Amino acid sequence: MNFEEKLLDSKRIYTGKIINVEEETVQLPDGKNAKREIVRHHGAVALLCITADDKMIFVKQWREPLRKTTLEVPAGKIEPAEEQSPEETAKRELNEEVRLRAERLEQIAVFYTSPGFADEKMFLYHAQGLSPVAQALPQDDDEFLNVYELTLAEAQEQIKAGLICDSKTIMAVWYWMLKLRSV
Amino acid sequence: MNFEEKLLDSKRIYTGKIINVEEETVQLPDGKNAKREIVRHHGAVALLCITADDKMIFVKQWREPLRKTTLEVPAGKIEPAEEQSPEETAKRELNEEVRLRAERLEQIAVFYTSPGFADEKMFLYHAQGLSPVAQALPQDDDEFLNVYELTLAEAQEQIKAGLICDSKTIMAVWYWMLKLRSV
Repeated sequence: MNFEEKLLDSKRIYTGKIINVEEETVQLPDGKNAKREIVRHHGAVALLCITADDKMIFVKQWREPLRKTTLEVPAGKIEPAEEQSPEETAKRELNEEVRLRAERLEQIAVFYTSPGFADEKMFLYHAQGLSPVAQALPQDDDEFLNVYELTLAEAQEQIKAGLICDSKTIMAVWYWMLKLRSV
Repeated sequence: MNFEEKLLDSKRIYTGKIINVEEETVQLPDGKNAKREIVRHHGAVALLCITADDKMIFVKQWREPLRKTTLEVPAGKIEPAEEQSPEETAKRELNEEVRLRAERLEQIAVFYTSPGFADEKMFLYHAQGLSPVAQALPQDDDEFLNVYELTLAEAQEQIKAGLICDSKTIMAVWYWMLKLRSV
């Protein structure tokens, strides 16, 4: 059955630097109207990076929406004005956040982070053939982070402890586990 | 190192039914100020359900933020006024969306869906000991969905096809794969 909602009206509520918010009026399959609250976002990339000695790379940073410190995979927003592709964003973030370059980016998964209220699309890559960058890009001036390397056992421990606590990062750890178990 | 940001000011931009939006002014570790755009959400639950004949249960529905139809695990928002725990929400959604009850809910993972701009927290459960409900709860009047059962191979096919396209649902599929490979 087709449950498509017909868009009747869209009102911009908020225009931010990272998100916009819209209130839509839609017609439901039964003919009634409903309101939909929608966050618009330009999308983001995230990177699974495994070192030569089998450790996974994380960045530790303050996340103001959660008011806590997290361990996450290197990641960043796609800059719509500057970047043609998610791969470009991935290469930039790999340089900015962890000072690495990759020979290859293998796409692991593409997914929406919260399809009930947001259109943010995430591109998760496995960065392969890592080496230090020759020329370091400047870091964002409102971004402060430390880089950590964890074994798989340590990463699983940090999921239990709640320091690794977001979907893209847990997915990256699980993907690594799946790869190891498929050998 | 501690990169905590000091909250200087918070302004409510939007008050919706599902989300609120706030603009915060914070003091960064280097003493400068920055703006943070934050979506507040009451959290949600999602359920991995495997049938007796080894199929996974999905709901197919229209997602207006993406303007497309998706296949997702049964899921729903925590209603702050009514519900004491995510487990209560999980049991209600299991009844409302797929007309099942579970003997046990095993917590698979707890994670933030998009920690850069939202505080939405997701509780993912494996619903075990499934049976049809004796008494069906009324469904939300703005929610229209169909229920599907897929084998693991079919689910993997739908990830490739892009109909399964959100983090919680891909995580549920991967968790199922991890369980099968650990036997």
